[in-house]
Amino acid sequence: MRLNTIREWRDIETSKVHRLFYPQVPVVVTVEFEGQIGGMPAIWCTPLSFDPPLIGVALAPDHKTFKMLMGARTFGINWLEYGYAKELARLGETSANGLTNKLTSVGLKTFKGKKTTQPLIEQSSANLECRLNQNYRVGTHELVVGEVLSASARSSFDKYWNFTRYNPILYAGTTENKKKAWIFMSIRGKKTKIPYTHTD
Amino acid sequence: MRLNTIREWRDIETSKVHRLFYPQVPVVVTVEFEGQIGGMPAIWCTPLSFDPPLIGVALAPDHKTFKMLMGARTFGINWLEYGYAKELARLGETSANGLTNKLTSVGLKTFKGKKTTQPLIEQSSANLECRLNQNYRVGTHELVVGEVLSASARSSFDKYWNFTRYNPILYAGTTENKKKAWIFMSIRGKKTKIPYTHTD
Repeated sequence: MRLNTIREWRDIETSKVHRLFYPQVPVVVTVEFEGQIGGMPAIWCTPLSFDPPLIGVALAPDHKTFKMLMGARTFGINWLEYGYAKELARLGETSANGLTNKLTSVGLKTFKGKKTTQPLIEQSSANLECRLNQNYRVGTHELVVGEVLSASARSSFDKYWNFTRYNPILYAGTTENKKKAWIFMSIRGKKTKIPYTHTD
Repeated sequence: MRLNTIREWRDIETSKVHRLFYPQVPVVVTVEFEGQIGGMPAIWCTPLSFDPPLIGVALAPDHKTFKMLMGARTFGINWLEYGYAKELARLGETSANGLTNKLTSVGLKTFKGKKTTQPLIEQSSANLECRLNQNYRVGTHELVVGEVLSASARSSFDKYWNFTRYNPILYAGTTENKKKAWIFMSIRGKKTKIPYTHTD
């Protein structure tokens, strides 16, 4: 649809600005530190540089997985497909506090990366091993810049993703009713809501 | 589809890592500086903080629009829908060098933002006025962090986007054949290729 150019704007509260960026493809940040394996979804993520290959994820600094990352200074990045929306949601609701392996606790399997020995997700379609390059405090979040040491993907990625085979998760927000739920979309016109297990 | 967990990984060249993040919803960065109006798509963009509301775009520092932004220190961010994929592609191919108004040169109309007087795109579905907060050199790109001074959107955004009405552009890369083209997808299962006008 091409919009007419009448200025039918309404002001948006600045606290809702991040939602204008939706949908975004989330990644899962994975890390092992002091014998404990953690992982959390990061919606706010983007490539940052071609050479050296740098990527950025903005994380809430009070999260256990973030603290483990700052301790380990290496970490994994993983892409889960639409079929794993439920596991992604569970990772976003659970804290790594007190869990030996948060990833297996939500039904994901891990293996050790070759370069860093950091955990990567077996069910992922692609994953990266990264070394912490920089981190910047930006308001409420910490922007973690990672240098990519190695990258691997399934055959659905050649020079680009083959989107007839790769079906990414598109994060579209959460419902705001009494029953809180994650909203995920696909590039195939589908939409799914995954209720929070632990309602606040 | 749920993937089996056989480790059918292949190594990906680190120069192609950014493509693992696709699809991404691009924004258009708009700026007026010294009487000239520029605008460029930014694929590498993300929210960075809730409060203060900060957003980030990674820009190639040799681009004219980036230089104008660093001069002006305020700028606009605009979201164009799928129906404007062609205009977005043209903005990505053209340099602002020598153009009085790059946005009108590709068929877009502009109006002045209330807070910054920076140009915003009339055909956009949402837009922000930002003040440069920080900028960091990250490898090949410059990460521009903007503080959001005001935000506005059409009625397709209330607390969230209404995705039955809002049809964003999903950037999926470019073709690598002789005839270079942009690849855009939608959340409705559509895909379009827009050939480059100027072939290198």
